[in-house]
Amino acid sequence: MAQLEPQRQTPAATECGDGALLRRLLGTRHLSLELAAPLSPEDMTIQPMDDASPTKWHLAHTTWFFETFVLRLHALDYRVFDEAFAYCFNSYYESEGDRQPRPSRGLLSRPSSERVLAYRAHVDGALERLLTRAPTAEIARLTEIGINHEQQHQELMLTDILALFAASPFHPAYQEPRTRQAPTQADPLSWLGFPGGIRSVGHDGRSFAWDNEQPMHSVVLQPFALADRLITNGEWLGFMSDGGYHQPLLWLSDGWATVRREGWQSPLYWHRRDDTWQMMSLEGLLPLDLAAPVCHVSYYEADAFARWAGKRLPTEFEWEIAACDLPPSGNTLGSRALRPLPADNGSSDKLRQMFGDAWEWTASAYAPYPGYRPPKGALGEYNGKFMVSQHVLRGASCVTPDGHSRPTYRNFFYPHQRWQFAGVRLAKEDG
Amino acid sequence: MAQLEPQRQTPAATECGDGALLRRLLGTRHLSLELAAPLSPEDMTIQPMDDASPTKWHLAHTTWFFETFVLRLHALDYRVFDEAFAYCFNSYYESEGDRQPRPSRGLLSRPSSERVLAYRAHVDGALERLLTRAPTAEIARLTEIGINHEQQHQELMLTDILALFAASPFHPAYQEPRTRQAPTQADPLSWLGFPGGIRSVGHDGRSFAWDNEQPMHSVVLQPFALADRLITNGEWLGFMSDGGYHQPLLWLSDGWATVRREGWQSPLYWHRRDDTWQMMSLEGLLPLDLAAPVCHVSYYEADAFARWAGKRLPTEFEWEIAACDLPPSGNTLGSRALRPLPADNGSSDKLRQMFGDAWEWTASAYAPYPGYRPPKGALGEYNGKFMVSQHVLRGASCVTPDGHSRPTYRNFFYPHQRWQFAGVRLAKEDG
Amino acid sequence: MAQLEPQRQTPAATECGDGALLRRLLGTRHLSLELAAPLSPEDMTIQPMDDASPTKWHLAHTTWFFETFVLRLHALDYRVFDEAFAYCFNSYYESEGDRQPRPSRGLLSRPSSERVLAYRAHVDGALERLLTRAPTAEIARLTEIGINHEQQHQELMLTDILALFAASPFHPAYQEPRTRQAPTQADPLSWLGFPGGIRSVGHDGRSFAWDNEQPMHSVVLQPFALADRLITNGEWLGFMSDGGYHQPLLWLSDGWATVRREGWQSPLYWHRRDDTWQMMSLEGLLPLDLAAPVCHVSYYEADAFARWAGKRLPTEFEWEIAACDLPPSGNTLGSRALRPLPADNGSSDKLRQMFGDAWEWTASAYAPYPGYRPPKGALGEYNGKFMVSQHVLRGASCVTPDGHSRPTYRNFFYPHQRWQFAGVRLAKEDG
Amino acid sequence: MAQLEPQRQTPAATECGDGALLRRLLGTRHLSLELAAPLSPEDMTIQPMDDASPTKWHLAHTTWFFETFVLRLHALDYRVFDEAFAYCFNSYYESEGDRQPRPSRGLLSRPSSERVLAYRAHVDGALERLLTRAPTAEIARLTEIGINHEQQHQELMLTDILALFAASPFHPAYQEPRTRQAPTQADPLSWLGFPGGIRSVGHDGRSFAWDNEQPMHSVVLQPFALADRLITNGEWLGFMSDGGYHQPLLWLSDGWATVRREGWQSPLYWHRRDDTWQMMSLEGLLPLDLAAPVCHVSYYEADAFARWAGKRLPTEFEWEIAACDLPPSGNTLGSRALRPLPADNGSSDKLRQMFGDAWEWTASAYAPYPGYRPPKGALGEYNGKFMVSQHVLRGASCVTPDGHSRPTYRNFFYPHQRWQFAGVRLAKEDG
Repeated sequence: MAQLEPQRQTPAATECGDGALLRRLLGTRHLSLELAAPLSPEDMTIQPMDDASPTKWHLAHTTWFFETFVLRLHALDYRVFDEAFAYCFNSYYESEGDRQPRPSRGLLSRPSSERVLAYRAHVDGALERLLTRAPTAEIARLTEIGINHEQQHQELMLTDILALFAASPFHPAYQEPRTRQAPTQADPLSWLGFPGGIRSVGHDGRSFAWDNEQPMHSVVLQPFALADRLITNGEWLGFMSDGGYHQPLLWLSDGWATVRREGWQSPLYWHRRDDTWQMMSLEGLLPLDLAAPVCHVSYYEADAFARWAGKRLPTEFEWEIAACDLPPSGNTLGSRALRPLPADNGSSDKLRQMFGDAWEWTASAYAPYPGYRPPKGALGEYNGKFMVSQHVLRGASCVTPDGHSRPTYRNFFYPHQRWQFAGVRLAKEDG
Repeated sequence: MAQLEPQRQTPAATECGDGALLRRLLGTRHLSLELAAPLSPEDMTIQPMDDASPTKWHLAHTTWFFETFVLRLHALDYRVFDEAFAYCFNSYYESEGDRQPRPSRGLLSRPSSERVLAYRAHVDGALERLLTRAPTAEIARLTEIGINHEQQHQELMLTDILALFAASPFHPAYQEPRTRQAPTQADPLSWLGFPGGIRSVGHDGRSFAWDNEQPMHSVVLQPFALADRLITNGEWLGFMSDGGYHQPLLWLSDGWATVRREGWQSPLYWHRRDDTWQMMSLEGLLPLDLAAPVCHVSYYEADAFARWAGKRLPTEFEWEIAACDLPPSGNTLGSRALRPLPADNGSSDKLRQMFGDAWEWTASAYAPYPGYRPPKGALGEYNGKFMVSQHVLRGASCVTPDGHSRPTYRNFFYPHQRWQFAGVRLAKEDG
Repeated sequence: MAQLEPQRQTPAATECGDGALLRRLLGTRHLSLELAAPLSPEDMTIQPMDDASPTKWHLAHTTWFFETFVLRLHALDYRVFDEAFAYCFNSYYESEGDRQPRPSRGLLSRPSSERVLAYRAHVDGALERLLTRAPTAEIARLTEIGINHEQQHQELMLTDILALFAASPFHPAYQEPRTRQAPTQADPLSWLGFPGGIRSVGHDGRSFAWDNEQPMHSVVLQPFALADRLITNGEWLGFMSDGGYHQPLLWLSDGWATVRREGWQSPLYWHRRDDTWQMMSLEGLLPLDLAAPVCHVSYYEADAFARWAGKRLPTEFEWEIAACDLPPSGNTLGSRALRPLPADNGSSDKLRQMFGDAWEWTASAYAPYPGYRPPKGALGEYNGKFMVSQHVLRGASCVTPDGHSRPTYRNFFYPHQRWQFAGVRLAKEDG
Repeated sequence: MAQLEPQRQTPAATECGDGALLRRLLGTRHLSLELAAPLSPEDMTIQPMDDASPTKWHLAHTTWFFETFVLRLHALDYRVFDEAFAYCFNSYYESEGDRQPRPSRGLLSRPSSERVLAYRAHVDGALERLLTRAPTAEIARLTEIGINHEQQHQELMLTDILALFAASPFHPAYQEPRTRQAPTQADPLSWLGFPGGIRSVGHDGRSFAWDNEQPMHSVVLQPFALADRLITNGEWLGFMSDGGYHQPLLWLSDGWATVRREGWQSPLYWHRRDDTWQMMSLEGLLPLDLAAPVCHVSYYEADAFARWAGKRLPTEFEWEIAACDLPPSGNTLGSRALRPLPADNGSSDKLRQMFGDAWEWTASAYAPYPGYRPPKGALGEYNGKFMVSQHVLRGASCVTPDGHSRPTYRNFFYPHQRWQFAGVRLAKEDG
């Protein structure tokens, strides 16, 4: 992993020059392979559920993305690796033609993992040649998008591998369990207040950001307070033992219908064994860590928990204002913990766990900002067409690549989805 | 219909005194019966689809609402009409116990329509006795809620009757077709601009409003413009003939999946007969009126149309600010047109059709206002628990009872739903 | 009911002359009305589930059958009552054009019950005129088919009414409970043996029979024994308390999958109230009669019970050979019990309950007899196209019209269906 | 493949002695590996649809079968390879405990293919040790069952591999296309008559046969005739061009519903490319061979074709009587054609293609023979619990291991299933 150090030590915003871009590109490309390394070809091929994709597919799709949006358009002498791959590895770009249906990504035993690695090498070589010669601003822009796109898929890869291993009767571990610290107890939750007023939110466009973070614009906020840390597994057990999953009045109507239809009794990946709770993780089945943040809960559950607690979820703008001066770092992928960890104790006068551990569900529906315009061309499909029926999550998780997130970053999922590393931070009115 | 005149002539806000409340109550209760009058007992009993309810159920449920939330709590000598009705006619109040599942409301051949009418008479008598004696403020408040609740169900009754008759191979007419005016042509769309700034939205609570319209709060708006009238059927045909239902790039991802799964090719209730389009309405099958507003479209369709037109849908706050000084009247239930009508021509310097004809889809997800708190008790389930995955509609429709809506009124439905009288008004950035 | 006496006293086979046919026709037509008489228009209109049809639909469909297959073809001056009815009331005759989808029969609030009665009167008048003049053999043949067809729908009407009332939270009674006899205890099951050999089965065609009962042909039987009576509710409780619904090894694979998917724990229409079992019936909720035959069980359940008992179900030919000399009478519709009754005690040296009480599931898949040919024309669709994936039931039930069944009669349903009046008689090898 | 010659040259029935059993066992075990050899680990892991299983699963399940029913019970010193495998690789034996749900067999990335091969070697070694010492009759009996069981899975393996490769956008070939003979034309269909009478069917038990082929018993047959060969792709095109998939009157009611729901327009695996038809096969996409037997049709289609042709399908007993003196050989797995081949021309005075090319749908529902008893213990679940709603197929296919079938052999599938190598032979009444 030594070769990735530069990337993690040198965040994107401070690097400059073409060499830096190429280094970041190759570091990112390499990290994907490193993440896939513990897997067998079989592990890499299976699709555990419709929402998740095989690792092999992620490796190929991110490569197709560079091939399609960078090399085909800007590398004149580029030879397409295999014309048939566009059908296999296009995710959802209608502009780019027909594609393998999402729930059938797991039917692709061919091309083999080996051939996908050859595809990556082919594309990496071409990218390296392209970027070594001073790239145009457009090439640099598209490469930057490709890097950020691949980082998103790195997170999804780990998320989907967990889904795969959780579906196995063997509960295999993706990585060896780390030496475990003595169990800790979480500090009592404390609150940090923020004044209301007219505040500016969204990204200013001076460095890389997704279209959905823009334009920057003003919003009115009421005074509010945020909990200083994420809700823990121990607190979630309190919700459960108080009948949380059995009291309809705690739930949104759609949420309650989902609880009943799906038989939810706990967060995803929790297992009751005799009288103790275990949790499936990338380190296999572990005893539930009561001080660690709860994770793999849906929006419905996050919202019900908040109601049970007499609080609410923050809006995405409250979260952003609270986060805007914090360094966007924490227990993210670089730490290789690969699971949410207890908050550092003894520092409850500031917000903890804002970046890393678990994405934080917000009360905000995923919607365009005032004046939002998707980019021209196929990349215009990247974010805009998903702006309905989903909720925004803020922060980052334990499997988010280092440096990928920022205070304005908007992640989004449907309110019933649980396989993401998503947790809960509470908010309340203040003053 | 003479007996309803007082109600329609005298809007709620200007009435005062207990007698006025009782008169409004009885007028509302009577209107429900009047709306059901053209139906046979069989018509009143059938549930045409899961989203819709039988007329008989609406008549009984609104009665159960008064019985449960007014009479049981505040009329000491009240004798419950039939204890079994709570199971049948509770809609979704978890606090009030188990209930007939929504998709099974059409299995209730018993109680008969006749017995439901007796139920109504029993409850009306008790309400009249209660309100004749000077009611407490709490009784008056609950009665007002009951009136507004029943008005909502009057709209649903007509909406659901249309769904029922549209499902019949006979396409029966609910009312005789009115004398038809000569076909008109819609004015070209024109635009009215509104300045940006910090604006106050939401209801001030000084007269009746739902909890979801409150609290009043400030928002920041950018300058915007609204189309002066609703989109017409003729304009929708333009979208269709330009391949609107066949171009994925016009659609939200969820919308496109719905178009393909459901085979949508036109708005709901449109039928192609030979080379002409007809539309099922409460007056039976009619030739499509090109100048009339398009109706029975989903949010997905409204959004795709706006994208096709190079415009967008308004946010709910843009709409509210534009509407806040307009009289909340138009082609609503009192006109008995029961279908959207062409806008009056020649007045394009002001907003037309803001109240009446068709509810207007907004770009705003249905969410709580800052500081929103649902009421205590079972009525707290009225609005709050639906605040996820739905979109706000503003205005009123041709089947909204007169005086029921207002500039701050928030209607809400799921983005795929089409059986409501919902149409489209475009917006754009301004200045 | 006096007017129906002639029909029941004078079975079809022995009647002759045109007057007899007309009398039987009118008696049958009248009986349908009589069976519908306790219902409100609303009761008659609702479809409680996809398999069941509204009473109004049955009344109209049987009328359409006469109109289509007798009057249109053979009554030269016949005026079709309403051309639109063919769409509404054709059941499944592809030759007769498009039709209302089966699961949507409950959407037909129009035509009203009243108009359906007028339709019946119109057709009855025309039939009476046609049959009063000496009818041709073809007219007589088709009329006979129409009578038998209507009798089948009389049984279905009552079966479907029970499904409707069982779905009501009120559990209404179709008829007043009869005076109840003191509870009896069933005789122990005894067995009657039959020799093996080459036997002739199927109908000889000398009187009315369906195409599926023909041609008569030879089969080889091994010696076998039949239980002298139907399995009782009390015996079924024994199966249940021995874990019958929880032991996969007792079940066919498809059956076990159905038990788990549907959560079956008892026969359809059984309800546990505190510590006692009740059963929904056409007389409303009744205490479970332990001596009465179990009813409303699927083939899967019948087969599992037999395996639990160490026995098996009879084949249809074993049943037919055993029944061939018995009078085809018993507790059928004419008795107006409308539910299975305990067998008469003290006569265990002969088969009891072979006709009436409950149809008896056989081990035989529904298949064509050797040399079977469906009739020419639309009536060829009557039976043949259903000869796959269903099982044959023999006998008759408590809601089968008197005189409708016979030893060769083949009823048939899918192995998972439970809403029919179907019960269990055991068989075993003999000698 | 040299090592398999003994097996194919020396059919089971004529071999004797323990050495022969061991040789047959090892030959069979080896053949499974040989069939899997062309596959990558990824190919072996994927489950293309619920009905099909991954190759890896087949390899492990057949091994588990020997481990569970031979070694655990009879090899005293046997050490179970991995206790967790019972959960993974039990197919449907309720007696043997819980198991991986069938539709989730494709989630088992672990154990790896490599480990499954080690499992096979472990079990093979133990079996060899057990059988080298003179095995008891019970061990020999169970080993014989295991061999036949594994042969069935060899056929399924190839069938499921075709399903997998047919689902791939690459249409890969499992084996290189053989040198193709010049296209031939099929002889006109001719008919061979068989007399009626009382005939004995079923297996006499003097050599290996499944429980479902027994007991031998008598049936009455009418005179009948069988087509001398299977229906060809060319004849199927005639059915299609005559509107076969569009005429409801040709179809069983369930069949027609399936045609409409699934959009069937041709047999499974047919593809229209421009104006020619291609067929996916184990040799990849091939031009449709008009003289070769049609394959991958459902019972519904076979039945509809027969009706269109004015004929019918044979019963399983007609087929058996016609086949009883024929050698059970033909184009089966040993020929390595792996697809149905045209019948040899010029020999229409005898039945051709009775064993091999394609299984033949019969008109007979899969049911127990008179006096059938499943074996004691878990193996009693092998056949009996599937005896409902399926149809019997007779003969063998191009992927049936040589020597596996016989005239009394009963294969069975649901009437809608098409992924098997199933074709059509017509029958008719004779004389």
